[in-house]
Amino acid sequence: MKSREDLTKMTKIEVVVSGADAHAVRDLFRAAGATGFTSLSGVSGLGHHGYHQGRLLFNEQATLELLITVVPVEKVDALLAGLRPLLASSSGVMFLSDTFVSRPEYFA
Amino acid sequence: MKSREDLTKMTKIEVVVSGADAHAVRDLFRAAGATGFTSLSGVSGLGHHGYHQGRLLFNEQATLELLITVVPVEKVDALLAGLRPLLASSSGVMFLSDTFVSRPEYFA
Amino acid sequence: MKSREDLTKMTKIEVVVSGADAHAVRDLFRAAGATGFTSLSGVSGLGHHGYHQGRLLFNEQATLELLITVVPVEKVDALLAGLRPLLASSSGVMFLSDTFVSRPEYFA
Repeated sequence: MKSREDLTKMTKIEVVVSGADAHAVRDLFRAAGATGFTSLSGVSGLGHHGYHQGRLLFNEQATLELLITVVPVEKVDALLAGLRPLLASSSGVMFLSDTFVSRPEYFA
Repeated sequence: MKSREDLTKMTKIEVVVSGADAHAVRDLFRAAGATGFTSLSGVSGLGHHGYHQGRLLFNEQATLELLITVVPVEKVDALLAGLRPLLASSSGVMFLSDTFVSRPEYFA
Repeated sequence: MKSREDLTKMTKIEVVVSGADAHAVRDLFRAAGATGFTSLSGVSGLGHHGYHQGRLLFNEQATLELLITVVPVEKVDALLAGLRPLLASSSGVMFLSDTFVSRPEYFA
């Protein structure tokens, strides 16, 4: 794949939180130097400790928001430092994965 | 990236199915030991065999649901064993990818 | 993980564009040989150059669409060749990542 050579590896961070916490997540993204984000509404879910802790019945789903940002690898530490305390005090979850972009200057 | 050391590699499973099949997928997630899921509505699509089989015209999109779960690697086999027959008999698709989480106990 | 042996590595391409550009992206997907796509509405965001260029205030979010397709690695070059000019002239962003599927014939 020729094109992969032109692409730059970055880290995609996906956060699922209650609608009430979404604004705080966006502020953290910006404070850590993210240059943008994508936000998805129409999200429901059974928080990954819902099954465990029995806080929610199986059909009782929360209204959530999925927030996605992509940052250069060197900004990940700052982002995680901000997100960990927020997620620890809420029922949010966070996933990190590798992704490749064609215009790295947009995310740096 | 210092933080990556504190993260645990897991498998993210994304399933796109018709709204009618979404409940069965959630049941399979739970039966295979997933501790939660995220579900997105407002999803449309041209199922990946739609172009091929000519069942749908190009602008005729189905109402779908995107279901996401994250599980430890050792639970993937059980999850796939359950999902394969369901997807084979429906028009759903499934994608697996590596992801990293900060609180592995939430997903185990 | 036994199941991973049965899976085929492909490339997932996610594109976030304004609703007005979504149709052009779907056409490009098809022209490059993608066999389908998933489209998510209810997407908002601050385009990744929004913070930089000050075009948008922080709370002023655009209505966007997230389009996802999965293609065999050998189709990625054609897809990128089509998407790059479209994204350069709009405010869209694109992420590529590795993903694994169980029925590769659906995507080829």
